[in-house]
Parts: sequence; C-alpha cells; structure tokens
Amino acid sequence: MEKYEIRTDLALETRELYKKATHIEDEVPGVQTIVDDSNPNFLITKVQILSEEGANLLGKPIGDYITIESPYMNDEVESIDNELITKIAETIKDVSHIIKKDSVLVVGLGNTDVTPDALGPKVINHLNITRHLAQYAPELLSENTREISAVIPGVLGTTGIETSDIIKGIINETAPDILIVIDALAAKDMNRISRTIQICNTGITPGSGVKNNRSSLTKENLGIPVVAIGVPTVVGIPTIIDEAISYVREKSAEADTVLNEKNYMQDILENKQFDFMVTPNTIDDIISNLARLISEGINEALK
Amino acid sequence: MEKYEIRTDLALETRELYKKATHIEDEVPGVQTIVDDSNPNFLITKVQILSEEGANLLGKPIGDYITIESPYMNDEVESIDNELITKIAETIKDVSHIIKKDSVLVVGLGNTDVTPDALGPKVINHLNITRHLAQYAPELLSENTREISAVIPGVLGTTGIETSDIIKGIINETAPDILIVIDALAAKDMNRISRTIQICNTGITPGSGVKNNRSSLTKENLGIPVVAIGVPTVVGIPTIIDEAISYVREKSAEADTVLNEKNYMQDILENKQFDFMVTPNTIDDIISNLARLISEGINEALK
Amino acid sequence: MEKYEIRTDLALETRELYKKATHIEDEVPGVQTIVDDSNPNFLITKVQILSEEGANLLGKPIGDYITIESPYMNDEVESIDNELITKIAETIKDVSHIIKKDSVLVVGLGNTDVTPDALGPKVINHLNITRHLAQYAPELLSENTREISAVIPGVLGTTGIETSDIIKGIINETAPDILIVIDALAAKDMNRISRTIQICNTGITPGSGVKNNRSSLTKENLGIPVVAIGVPTVVGIPTIIDEAISYVREKSAEADTVLNEKNYMQDILENKQFDFMVTPNTIDDIISNLARLISEGINEALK
Amino acid sequence: MEKYEIRTDLALETRELYKKATHIEDEVPGVQTIVDDSNPNFLITKVQILSEEGANLLGKPIGDYITIESPYMNDEVESIDNELITKIAETIKDVSHIIKKDSVLVVGLGNTDVTPDALGPKVINHLNITRHLAQYAPELLSENTREISAVIPGVLGTTGIETSDIIKGIINETAPDILIVIDALAAKDMNRISRTIQICNTGITPGSGVKNNRSSLTKENLGIPVVAIGVPTVVGIPTIIDEAISYVREKSAEADTVLNEKNYMQDILENKQFDFMVTPNTIDDIISNLARLISEGINEALK
Repeated sequence: MEKYEIRTDLALETRELYKKATHIEDEVPGVQTIVDDSNPNFLITKVQILSEEGANLLGKPIGDYITIESPYMNDEVESIDNELITKIAETIKDVSHIIKKDSVLVVGLGNTDVTPDALGPKVINHLNITRHLAQYAPELLSENTREISAVIPGVLGTTGIETSDIIKGIINETAPDILIVIDALAAKDMNRISRTIQICNTGITPGSGVKNNRSSLTKENLGIPVVAIGVPTVVGIPTIIDEAISYVREKSAEADTVLNEKNYMQDILENKQFDFMVTPNTIDDIISNLARLISEGINEALK
Repeated sequence: MEKYEIRTDLALETRELYKKATHIEDEVPGVQTIVDDSNPNFLITKVQILSEEGANLLGKPIGDYITIESPYMNDEVESIDNELITKIAETIKDVSHIIKKDSVLVVGLGNTDVTPDALGPKVINHLNITRHLAQYAPELLSENTREISAVIPGVLGTTGIETSDIIKGIINETAPDILIVIDALAAKDMNRISRTIQICNTGITPGSGVKNNRSSLTKENLGIPVVAIGVPTVVGIPTIIDEAISYVREKSAEADTVLNEKNYMQDILENKQFDFMVTPNTIDDIISNLARLISEGINEALK
Repeated sequence: MEKYEIRTDLALETRELYKKATHIEDEVPGVQTIVDDSNPNFLITKVQILSEEGANLLGKPIGDYITIESPYMNDEVESIDNELITKIAETIKDVSHIIKKDSVLVVGLGNTDVTPDALGPKVINHLNITRHLAQYAPELLSENTREISAVIPGVLGTTGIETSDIIKGIINETAPDILIVIDALAAKDMNRISRTIQICNTGITPGSGVKNNRSSLTKENLGIPVVAIGVPTVVGIPTIIDEAISYVREKSAEADTVLNEKNYMQDILENKQFDFMVTPNTIDDIISNLARLISEGINEALK
Repeated sequence: MEKYEIRTDLALETRELYKKATHIEDEVPGVQTIVDDSNPNFLITKVQILSEEGANLLGKPIGDYITIESPYMNDEVESIDNELITKIAETIKDVSHIIKKDSVLVVGLGNTDVTPDALGPKVINHLNITRHLAQYAPELLSENTREISAVIPGVLGTTGIETSDIIKGIINETAPDILIVIDALAAKDMNRISRTIQICNTGITPGSGVKNNRSSLTKENLGIPVVAIGVPTVVGIPTIIDEAISYVREKSAEADTVLNEKNYMQDILENKQFDFMVTPNTIDDIISNLARLISEGINEALK
C-alpha cells in the first residue's frame, strides 16, 4: 500500500472516486454499470469495463467486476448465508463461462499469520479437492467429477519468490483450464469492509498503480482465464484522514483554499511509522465466516 | 472504547493531553515527572501522581506510572532485549516493593482470539509457575522458591462474568500476596504503539472515564497490591481524525472557528460501523515478541 | 495417567473390565445397565451405579453414566448431527433435572495447547453466554432468559492452582445453581475414541485411582450439582500392549502361564520415555467437530 | 503408513532392523557406519550406503545418512542448543558440498494442521529469506548474499497435486542450485522420537516400500541435489505391538512357535480403526522447539 494513497481494490469504488474527482454525473466513458437491488438482503453491482478508454480511466483491465454487498454478511443467519452462497456460485459461473470438463486450480493468496490477510489460505482449507482421487481413490469419484486442485503459495516476504512465478510453475506441471484466486482487499468505505465480495474475470495485479506485469495474475501472464474473488478487510489510514479533511473543506472555504496548496496527507503522516492497518475488532471471526461462505460458494460453482 | 473519544491508557499521554488542553507549561499540580534518557536505547519516564488533586486532574489513581519507550523494542536484537528484560524486572520490583517471601498471582487479561488483545494470555504461557510444585514435585524446588501462579480469566463477552469477580474468587481460594496483571492498551500516539511498556502500582480500571468500581482491578477492590503491566497495541480512529483536524485548525483560522461550533467527531463517525481498530500490520509477530520480553522480565523480577 | 495402567474414564468400560476380570455373566452388584439400540445411528447405554457396593466395585461414585456411541459421529452428516445434538441436550436435561430458573456455569477443562486435550476450551468458545447481558445489554434478553456463564480454568501445570480451587472461587463469587464441566477422556477401546460421548451427574475426579478429594469436581466438594460431559480422545500405550499380550495368551497356554508370573507391562515399558499419547491422525478436525456438536447440545439443553 | 508395517524413516534403524532380522554381527554389505560419541551431549552416527547391494538390502538410495541424537534435544538449554545448531549447520554443509554462490530453495513438507506433521512448515517461518531482496530491497543485501527462497507446498490430500509436481514447477521458474527439504518422520524406537535429527543427501521418497518414482523428491527426479532434514515425531502402533510380542516370544518357546504361524499383526489390528498416531503429549512445544533449532541450523549453514 502506498504510504499516502487513498487505496481501494474495488472497481465499484474506483468508479465512484473517478466520478467524484471529475464531477461527472453520467457513466464513465467505456464503462457500463448495472445495479440489482431486487433482493432486499443484497445489493449486486456489475461494473463492466468495455474499452481501453474505460480501462485507462479506472486503471483496471477490460472485464466484468461484480460486487455483492450485504449488511448481513457476518450475521450467520442460515437463510441469508444460503442465498449468498448461491449468489457467489452463480457469479463465478457467470464471469468464468466455465464448462463441465474444465479443471480448476484454486489459489489462496495472502499471509496466514496476519489475520485480515488470511482469507485466501482459509478458503483453501474448506474446498472439495478431487484432482488426486482419480489416481489414489477412484472409488470416491462419480462420473464426470471435475478435477479441482488448490495451493497456498505464501507471500513474497516469506518465500522470496514472486507469487506469480510459483503459480506459473504449478500451472506448467498440472495444466488446469481455469484459475480461481482468492485474496483480501482494501476498500475506501469503512462500511464495505467485510460486507462486500468482489468477483471479476480479469485476475489480480498486486499494487494497483505499479506497472509490474510480471507479477500480475492474469490470463495474459499465466495463459489461462483467471477469476478473482476478493473481500475488503482493511482500510488505509489515508482514507480516514481524507474523510476528516473533506469534512472540514465542506465547512470552511478558507480551509478548502489552504488545503489546495498543501500536500496535507504527507504533512500529517510523514513522521508516522507507516505499517498500520484499520480492521474490524472481530476480524478473526469475520475471516472464518467469510472463508466458509466463499469456499461453499466455490464448491457449489464447481460441483 | 467510547465511540468518539480520544483514548489513551498511558499516564504519560494523559499528562500530555492535560497540559496541551490547559496550555500549562509547568508540571500538572499534584504530579511529579522524572525523565531518564541516560541510556540511548531507552527513554524512561516516571509519572508520579502524588495527591488527590493530581489524581482528579489526570483521571487516574495516586501512584507511580513508569513507561519504558524504545524504538528498538521489536527488533529482536539480543543485547537490547536483555537490557529491556532487566529494566522490566527492576521496574516491577521498584513499584511493587515485593519481598522474597511474597507469593504472586499473575493474570493475563484480554481476548486470546483477537490478536492485538492477546498480549496478556500469551505472557502467561511463558511464565515459570511454581505454586503447585511444593505438593506435586518438591524435588524441583530450591529453598525459598517463591510461590507463583497464573490465570487467563477470559473476557466478559465470552465468560459472562466480570473479570474482577473471577480474580476475587481465585484470590480468596489461593491467598496470594501480590497481583500482577498484564493487558493490551490503547495509546494516542501511533509511534508509541508496540514500542512502549507501562508499569504501574495502581492496578487497572477498565474503561477510564466510567466509575465502575466493582470491576476495577485495584488494591481497594481486591485487597492486595496490584502491579499492572501494559503495552499499547491499538490506536482509536478518533485519534487519527483528531490529528487531521488539528492540522487544518493550525493552518486556517476560519476552520478553527467553525470547528469550535461543531461536534465534528460525531459528525464524521456517526454513520460508520464503529468496531474498528488501528493496529500494526505485523501485530502477530509483535505480540509474540512482547509477550516473550515481558514474561522474561516477570520471571527475572520474581526469581 | 499411571504409567503401567490400563486406563479408562468411561463407566461403560469400567463395567466391562470388571466383568471380564471377575468372569461374571450377570450384572455387577449394585449396578443397573439399560441399552437402547432403537435408533440405528446411535447406541445409548445407561450405566446406573445404585449403591455403595456398585460404587466400590467400579471405583466410581453413585449416579448415572450415559454414553452415546455412534460410528458416524465425525462424518458431519447434517441429519445425524442434528439427532446427536438433540440426544446430547435431552441427556443433559435428564441427568441434571435442571429447571428453568437455574443459572449455569460451564467449565471447559483441559489444555488448549495439546490438541486432544483442547475439547473443553473449544466447547466454551461456541456457547451462548447470557449472564452479563442483564447488566450490559438488557435489550438482548427475552423474559426468563437463563443466566449462563463459562470459564476456561487452564491446567495445574500452567496455573499452579488446583482447577477445583479456581472453580470454587468463581462459584463463591457468582453463585450458579448447576455446574457443567467438559473434558477430554481416555478410553480402553480404540474404536470408541472420538465416537463416544459420556454424560454423567457425578462430576469428575481427576486421576481415577487417586483419593484426592480436594481436587475433585463434585457436588460434595463444590456444593452444587455437577454434570460432566466427556469424549475419549486418547488411548494409553498400556492398553495397546495389553491387546497384544491377550492375543498371545489365548493362543499359547505356556505363554499364559509364564505371563502370570511377570509384571510384563513394567518389563516392556520401564525403559521408555513415558509421555506418549495414542490419538487419531485427524485429531484437529475431530476436536473442532465434537466441540461444535457438544456446544450446540448444551445451548439446546439450556435454551 | 502401511497398516501392519513396522515403519521407520531412519537409515540407522533400517540398518538395525536388517541386522536383527538376518542375525548378522558384522556390517551390512555395501554399507559403512561411523559412530562419533566424543561429545557427551550428542551421539552422531553416519550410515553410508556405498553400493547398489547396500541400497537394495536397506531399501534406501546410495548416499550419506547422518543422525544426531541427544536426550537433551528438547530441554532448551542454551549451551546445548548452540552446539546442536552448529552441528546441524556443519552436517548440512558436509553432505551437500554447497558452495558460496549456490542458491537454495527450502521446502517445508507436511500438514500444518496436524501437529506432529507441522515441523516442515514451522521451520520455513523462521528462515532468513533473501531471494527477493535483490529486486525489492537491495540496500539490505551485503555482497555475496546467497539467494534463499522457501515454500510450504501443502499435502496431497488438501492440494490434489503431488508435492513433487509443485516443487518441480517452482524449480523450473526459479532455478535454485540446491534443494533442502524438511519433514516429520516415523521411527521404530520410541526413545528416538523428537530426540533425533537425520540429515541425508539422497532426498525423500514418500512411502518407503512403494516404488512411486514420480513422487520422490530426489536429484534423479528434480534435477538438482536434494538435502533432506527429518525428525521422527510419531511411532506406529504396529511397532508397539511388536515390542509386546517380542517380549512374549523371548519368554515362551511355545508362544514363539505359535506366533510363527500367525499373521498376528493383522489379527490384532484388523478390526481397529487405523488412523491413529503415537506421539509425545507435549508435541506442540516439541515441534516449536525443533523448528527453531533446525531453522537456525539452516540459517547458519547458508550464511
């Protein structure tokens, strides 16, 4: 995370930020957005980046970005959980165009030892893995069972290897048809933390602004389609500072003018140790619950 | 934590906040402060609240509050760690006036499942416990071995019992001479997070402003002296907002005036889900390291 | 666990061992046993020790010991799990004679850091705790909500305090009407490990043969009725040796005669490091699953 | 683990078993063994399999197998730990013939969720990883810093992928010069559990008897030298039964004759659920301690 950057990994919020910054009322050029609020428990937003223009404006590749938002996501109400699992499964099938014979490799990104970053690894622990059964326990397979495998690659700081290189190596040896990656994300709106799931068909490029193509988990780089499933679990401190600053700018014309001339984010944060995250108090329970929902959604989609 | 409150559990910061709010240059009445910066690796500050006046002004009981601050606290440099352990041990002995025959009960406060709150329970796991040896393994005891016992009482939300009631019950059955409690704290200054240890001889009153005497862990309530050891591991979001607001107020007289009339903290936070904490990214490692340092310090002090 | 002892904590097995050792066909004097195999998924056995004679012969206090056995206990089949939860709830109510107004303290015995011993602490984490709500969140209470509290007292080796003393102290402060304790047990039959739940109304006396009344968790010692819920999770090595020895004795009369004159268990084990346990490979998953089932059973019983 | 098999992964014990079974007094043909008991704290045994004959007789590839045994391995005595770390480092350098410029990939085999199998993953967490620094933090590198990377590949049951395929893929992408694998082992002698470290230069072939070359982690299969570091953490139940049976056979000629005609291991175990492991009670602490020692030994060797 850049030290002074208002960061978000949600296409939904990138679009909101762009519209706010440019004061445009209409849709972003090259982008189409469909909102479905027909189910009172969920808000479904589909942001489609349709052209290079849209991709450049939002800083994200052409493709579909679907977010499922629900204030009830961590309430563990069985009926809502079941609707949510079904919705996750449908969305995965929708964006991936997966067919029955496609084999799938699922990758749990993130750091097992940092609670808000452990979503990906935790999802892997609940998946129905089948790829090895053909050889070791064929009696457990029904006809047409899909080959499903999964790995937890670790993070650069503890492996010393780009995650994309680990995955490339495994793809070369095991030849899956489709990749699904799960990751914890950052969001700008605190109310979206742990209450939003984004599913897209464009993969993941770690570090949004950075043009480090080699490390991105995309079809271009890995050679197979990549579905990315993410949940925002942290907010950056610059986001919180920005909310306070925006409040003052609205109330005081003088302050607004003064702040235009200042790199206020840097002024406020430059003497701070910058390795903090803002995360829910109950992040342990939240991660366990979300991992269960997403893994059941994936199991359902790949059945 | 109160929703809109700038919170700190450090006497050091309470004093700073009081002086800033009242614009006094001199020492707070009824308070004496001694700073020791003779060791370049550590800054030792002893805030002594000497009278009821000082206690009322700072909202903390009469007693000694010593903080050990070091930017190197999590660097795992063996020589600095050893100095730190010795300093912790000396400070515990200094504030407690413990004598050789005193038996000690150590209590690890906090929630094991919430990483930044798990400091207390983790310290307990590393202590040298001796109380049961007299009966079960007397051959392991040297003469004059002190009786040391320890408990992890849990938190109100998972036990349904005031922590003070659990401890009172155990004190009644086991009759220790001195209580040592360890807890994770909140601080106002992000640079103090995980780099400061506060040791005091006044116990702990959960929820600073609240007058809930029954739940406080103090000599008054428990009947024996209480040494409290704490490390700030989280900062509140109001603190971060306040830093941004202060920045603007300094730059713009108009903003300063406008904000005087506003309950800005409430305005900014009222629509937020308020169950967030701001904590270092590497809090897992930090808690493990601090638990090791503090437990070795306690073991050394009680040897 | 005694080093050379065939150990079991199940009244069911104590009775089997007694009958085998004494070659009696009929029921043990002072004992009554009722077997219910009407549900094909479960075997319910109720061993009632009715008199001092029965208590002396089986080395267990007068009272009811009900075991629920099922080969499907860890299969996570929802319908069987639900039947099992209902059966646990019914049995708790049956042996405890609990009434609506009784407040309950639940105690999770065992060592969190030793997987097969962590059953008790894990059950506590899933319980519906209510005791604190009357004071802190009365709006969450419906009328007649029972007061439920829970503690994880730790083990003697890490606390230095008899678990019974910790519990006595907490009972004195909080005055519950009934105590429920959960513990991991040892069994003699490997096929019962993790597939059997014993529920009794006589409490627990740690260390069967030892007469250490002070440390027992019983009505006599604690002053309130004690329901104990246990699952065998380990088998002792002497049990496995005994199975091998029994096999040979059946096949060879000479071996049978020779072994009568030998303290073979001591001969075989005396040079061994004796701190081993025999436990299922998948004990982590098993403990998680059993903790879930038992906590839901308790929640149901106390509703 | 084969259900009825006396299993060991230690070359030392394979040799002992062969000598006992064949009643030979001299060295096994094609094998040379050097014992070093000059340091009273350690017993070092170097079993060198020198020819195909030796390899066939012991069922292990030609190469060097060094075991470091110490009764003090888990006592956490600093001076002994330091000697042990030095000995591990020397042995790694000795069997690998590593030179300064060789890059190294370290692989932590085993299942993180099964305590006695988690040694490999835990070692990885303590290693000094450098491979990524050249690109991301060159200022942290001194000249001639060796490239060190590490992965935790998971186990077949949770990945669906042969571990050897995962490692092959990563080797293809990252081109290390030498592989070091760490794994938990089985031993025959309970007194060697957690007190023995085996270091060899022949890699690992999971499932000793099975000829599944594709899954072996060897130079032949992976293309680079493979150093394997292992510690026995479990004993099989057949081993314990065999000790009891051996005892009876020595005492009774009739039993010895009778047992010759019986497949006693199968008779005794066939109705058992066979997914048990025999492991020390304190395996959690033991694994943490061994992981620390081995990782420091590797760090020292690769410095």
